[in-house]
Amino acid sequence: MDRIDNRTNDQIRPVTITPSFQEFADGSVLIESGKTRVICSVSVDDKVPPFLKNSGRGWVTAEYSMLPRATLVRTPRDITKGSINGRSQEIQRLIGRSLRSVVDMNALGERTLQIDCDVIQADGGTRTASITGSYVAVYQALYNMVSMGVFNEIPIKDKLAAISVGVLKDEVLCDLCYEEDSTADCDFNVVMQGSGKFVELQGTAEGNPYSREILNKIIDTADKAIRELFEIQQKAIDSFTK
Amino acid sequence: MDRIDNRTNDQIRPVTITPSFQEFADGSVLIESGKTRVICSVSVDDKVPPFLKNSGRGWVTAEYSMLPRATLVRTPRDITKGSINGRSQEIQRLIGRSLRSVVDMNALGERTLQIDCDVIQADGGTRTASITGSYVAVYQALYNMVSMGVFNEIPIKDKLAAISVGVLKDEVLCDLCYEEDSTADCDFNVVMQGSGKFVELQGTAEGNPYSREILNKIIDTADKAIRELFEIQQKAIDSFTK
Amino acid sequence: MDRIDNRTNDQIRPVTITPSFQEFADGSVLIESGKTRVICSVSVDDKVPPFLKNSGRGWVTAEYSMLPRATLVRTPRDITKGSINGRSQEIQRLIGRSLRSVVDMNALGERTLQIDCDVIQADGGTRTASITGSYVAVYQALYNMVSMGVFNEIPIKDKLAAISVGVLKDEVLCDLCYEEDSTADCDFNVVMQGSGKFVELQGTAEGNPYSREILNKIIDTADKAIRELFEIQQKAIDSFTK
Amino acid sequence: MDRIDNRTNDQIRPVTITPSFQEFADGSVLIESGKTRVICSVSVDDKVPPFLKNSGRGWVTAEYSMLPRATLVRTPRDITKGSINGRSQEIQRLIGRSLRSVVDMNALGERTLQIDCDVIQADGGTRTASITGSYVAVYQALYNMVSMGVFNEIPIKDKLAAISVGVLKDEVLCDLCYEEDSTADCDFNVVMQGSGKFVELQGTAEGNPYSREILNKIIDTADKAIRELFEIQQKAIDSFTK
Amino acid sequence: MDRIDNRTNDQIRPVTITPSFQEFADGSVLIESGKTRVICSVSVDDKVPPFLKNSGRGWVTAEYSMLPRATLVRTPRDITKGSINGRSQEIQRLIGRSLRSVVDMNALGERTLQIDCDVIQADGGTRTASITGSYVAVYQALYNMVSMGVFNEIPIKDKLAAISVGVLKDEVLCDLCYEEDSTADCDFNVVMQGSGKFVELQGTAEGNPYSREILNKIIDTADKAIRELFEIQQKAIDSFTK
Amino acid sequence: MDRIDNRTNDQIRPVTITPSFQEFADGSVLIESGKTRVICSVSVDDKVPPFLKNSGRGWVTAEYSMLPRATLVRTPRDITKGSINGRSQEIQRLIGRSLRSVVDMNALGERTLQIDCDVIQADGGTRTASITGSYVAVYQALYNMVSMGVFNEIPIKDKLAAISVGVLKDEVLCDLCYEEDSTADCDFNVVMQGSGKFVELQGTAEGNPYSREILNKIIDTADKAIRELFEIQQKAIDSFTK
Repeated sequence: MDRIDNRTNDQIRPVTITPSFQEFADGSVLIESGKTRVICSVSVDDKVPPFLKNSGRGWVTAEYSMLPRATLVRTPRDITKGSINGRSQEIQRLIGRSLRSVVDMNALGERTLQIDCDVIQADGGTRTASITGSYVAVYQALYNMVSMGVFNEIPIKDKLAAISVGVLKDEVLCDLCYEEDSTADCDFNVVMQGSGKFVELQGTAEGNPYSREILNKIIDTADKAIRELFEIQQKAIDSFTK
Repeated sequence: MDRIDNRTNDQIRPVTITPSFQEFADGSVLIESGKTRVICSVSVDDKVPPFLKNSGRGWVTAEYSMLPRATLVRTPRDITKGSINGRSQEIQRLIGRSLRSVVDMNALGERTLQIDCDVIQADGGTRTASITGSYVAVYQALYNMVSMGVFNEIPIKDKLAAISVGVLKDEVLCDLCYEEDSTADCDFNVVMQGSGKFVELQGTAEGNPYSREILNKIIDTADKAIRELFEIQQKAIDSFTK
Repeated sequence: MDRIDNRTNDQIRPVTITPSFQEFADGSVLIESGKTRVICSVSVDDKVPPFLKNSGRGWVTAEYSMLPRATLVRTPRDITKGSINGRSQEIQRLIGRSLRSVVDMNALGERTLQIDCDVIQADGGTRTASITGSYVAVYQALYNMVSMGVFNEIPIKDKLAAISVGVLKDEVLCDLCYEEDSTADCDFNVVMQGSGKFVELQGTAEGNPYSREILNKIIDTADKAIRELFEIQQKAIDSFTK
Repeated sequence: MDRIDNRTNDQIRPVTITPSFQEFADGSVLIESGKTRVICSVSVDDKVPPFLKNSGRGWVTAEYSMLPRATLVRTPRDITKGSINGRSQEIQRLIGRSLRSVVDMNALGERTLQIDCDVIQADGGTRTASITGSYVAVYQALYNMVSMGVFNEIPIKDKLAAISVGVLKDEVLCDLCYEEDSTADCDFNVVMQGSGKFVELQGTAEGNPYSREILNKIIDTADKAIRELFEIQQKAIDSFTK
Repeated sequence: MDRIDNRTNDQIRPVTITPSFQEFADGSVLIESGKTRVICSVSVDDKVPPFLKNSGRGWVTAEYSMLPRATLVRTPRDITKGSINGRSQEIQRLIGRSLRSVVDMNALGERTLQIDCDVIQADGGTRTASITGSYVAVYQALYNMVSMGVFNEIPIKDKLAAISVGVLKDEVLCDLCYEEDSTADCDFNVVMQGSGKFVELQGTAEGNPYSREILNKIIDTADKAIRELFEIQQKAIDSFTK
Repeated sequence: MDRIDNRTNDQIRPVTITPSFQEFADGSVLIESGKTRVICSVSVDDKVPPFLKNSGRGWVTAEYSMLPRATLVRTPRDITKGSINGRSQEIQRLIGRSLRSVVDMNALGERTLQIDCDVIQADGGTRTASITGSYVAVYQALYNMVSMGVFNEIPIKDKLAAISVGVLKDEVLCDLCYEEDSTADCDFNVVMQGSGKFVELQGTAEGNPYSREILNKIIDTADKAIRELFEIQQKAIDSFTK
């Protein structure tokens, strides 16, 4: 089976990460993965949510939204409909949890990292691009705080990136674009740390359930792809730290 | 390590499914799993969402909510805060997708099954109990339609049940109660069909990422538990079909 | 004229009150009146609304809601429509006022009793069942506080129960079920204390206005019914106090 | 006991009804009762709510709102808080039900009378003034339709007016102003038709319950006051019909 | 070209300003300009918005709303649609800015003047009538504070009034009524101080753009009209200050 | 007086317009004016609002929003606060009116052009940049429709661009950046067509009112700047039409 853009089954799309994209943010990147483009920016706030007051510990939270014309057909804004899109809520909770798993909350102290992921163009994989990009934006925000003398070292415990993997007619395909995604039998999102351990694994098969064997193949594919993303993230980090 | 309620690591809590719980609903059960109690009811509507009009196909959708005093500390109602709780949205989307995977939409025709899962008491595992209970409520609603001559046979393609599995200090524990859940390193929800294939797999490890090995153990545990749930569901179904 | 369920005109439906229904609440009952079923639970909060701060006095407030399939036709949730149902608001204000009339606010001190009435099944008389049930739930919550040594005696000044009475073709009927209610000319809700004095009297006759004579008959009927409810409440209270 | 404004216990405040107050409305009055001032306007719509489609019958509905500075302390607008005030909802439902009891829905045909009651100044008794004023505004709207040849005769079945009566230290006082109302033990609203029959009776005694004897006295007082209001309404009606 | 009501092109409609209209407000007027009628009331609050805390300076803010039947066709309330009308927001921001330009915020001290403009009848020019009326209402509120000894002199720096001017087939027309406004090529709102300097100038020409020459004529017309309004305002002020 | 970035008083910031920025939109540009960056995209819809049905005429409408970190301090999203920012509403109404003045609605036919202006970075002048950019995006969308044979010629009647002009200590400054804007006495937005005629003129002087003389100077400055913008727009248009 040939893929739409002639990639091999386990090949990710070209990824570019441009740091310092929104100049006024504390950390900010534009991540491009094929035609998918997401701005990930970080704001450091000196407050924490009520349940963490006087705990000495910090917090990471995220919001995810799409510009109306990120999509082929215009998507109305949340405010027009009066409530946050259920899918967006699910995604922003995922981004928050993922990033919280690698930030050292004790070292961060009573501060909140507010991540904003705004999708400029959506061609599949926006949630995993958001996580992969947010990691670099968070790194940049914390690196800047080290430069300002707030911390001695960057309070990050491990690397973090994410990829989507799908199943289409029993073939396991890495990093689906929108057209592939819309016909896939099953859609997996995998979030992995530098240690190779998993933070999140979400596999949905509304169309066609998957066997244990396919599950194993999916995870192998994700593992390989995420290791490639770690290298791309590192290059972006090097561009502002060196 | 001993569990709070002396269960073995792979043991589920006692489960009771009471059919016909809300008399006015088309299908309705009360599912009790330990102290967790959820009402799952089904309403059959002769309309489908706009994207399915004139497709000849049906739809299944779900809403999930908790009574304020389902929890140890009172949870304000969504309407008081003005928006659906993000967690509830995530769960109701999961319930909808899961049930859609086993209903034969062509056989259902242009009808919508509206599932309502209302948690009366929450002691962990409410989302998986909702799925396990909703399967029986959907079965009951469709069985009644067969009795009324709407269908010749029940338009369900396979069995469906769900269980949560957690990891606590490297031990894999089945069907966490609230107290176990709140201290777990990782929380997995597994939705499986009668065929043994997976519909949904969601594993979150905000606290502590999990290895490939642990992942395999989690899935083994879930598989065994869900097969037990299939039997409990069958008994409930027998009570109104025989 | 024969009633649907063969009751005499002044006969109430069978009433069951099950205390401790939601285990995590401070006080909780399931009240069943015919097919009508309401969970009434109480949460004690150590705060009072702003207008009572530093007054030394307490407060009682209530919320009332119906599960979507409490009714013959599914009722959409408030959050779906974006605002609390006008009827629900009216009822929850009535429940709050009624219970405030019997709680000794000075003895309660600066605490709020938050009552939640959630209708599981609605077959007429849900607002009066909510009041009758909430009295027992409030009693239970305060009794528990006496047990914990917070009070020396239960800060309740008098008994309280409520009943609906309707008029149908000049006959005065006690405790209407939904089918009777929907055809009645007039619908009365009466809330009475143990002293036989009235706390609330609400009579609506959209269809057919009522004379002074009928009004007197309605009140006689309500008086008799509420005295029966006092006994049923007492039995439920005895079950957890003795 | 002397009343604040030297009225006798059963004396209403001076009432003025100015028809045609909002020129662009189909019917409109300004009703003044002491310092209480309410604009009641009626809009005729050629549609009915869904449940009346193809029934041949009409509908009457009402909205009630207060200008922010109708009150001694500014009341924030509903839109600022994001939801209709519970008290306003209760009142607008009462106004709607009351007016529906006297309009002949069959003669009205498939039309909706939308009543808007906007309180310019609130000094007690705004809900009863709204009902008394709305009757005249509805009369004016329907009278105009007769003039335009839509109806042969005005589709109103009977007169309608309303008054509040309160109890303060065992004295029954008619038509409470705000200061009296805020200290009263009990507050009654009575809506009566020209026949002397009752449409609505709402008595609330949060502070101090009332006996059967007091109830009778309240109704005597209301009856007398409403008969006076019928005359004042008639004079206003005469001013535009003769 | 003759105007609908036979005015000359630069003639304003008859204007009446009735002070003390809402008795409970700190300052209040009813302004009538032709058939346009607006209640402008002022509430003095001893708080300021967060950004002015501890600044020693005050604030002026405004809300603008229309009664549903101010208009020829009933306009639904904002709360029914769930959000403030965009046009209303624009207008209330304009009123707030305009009044802030003449109040001496240092002399006012940490207080907020909350202006409420409620349109009873809308026949064009409601936003300019709101500004012209609010000036008098603010004056009255501050005058009362001088009387109470809060200030030694009224903290107002200059006079303020506003007028609308339109262009219709190259003719510049002053103070458009609704019928003129709805067919105009261009609509200008001018807010001017006693000094003859401008505070706000808003000219919209959706239909037909205007030349520099027409712009000059518009401003000449507005200038003359506003000077007439200053005199009318003064007479209203004299009525409560002398 | 020297300007922050050494511009002369009547000099605009460097402007770049990148067409086809959001690939999936019907027309789309990124406009950069100094550090201000706005994405303007156009969606063509084959429907018109109700008031234009069966009129044969089209419509243009706009939405304006800012990404949270477009600003120095993070701005919460509208959906978080539950209502569209008043300032945004004002701006999107301005953008809509401005563009409607140059599109030939009869030639457009019953279609709606939905413009989305999303501010990526805000350094002053975002509303005027939105108008200037939207003109090119609308041009691109309509040009594409000509290419597809929908129209014979582009249904645009004239050029359109906008600029802000401010007054600071009696000096008239063109195209204020955020820092200049926040200290300016007065802020003018001018929207002009190719004919040199004005579509919108909005001048606000909360701090310090402006004289007739200054007004003239402001308009001279705007006129010159907008003519420069016409040329920049033309170059962008040439890039996709030639």
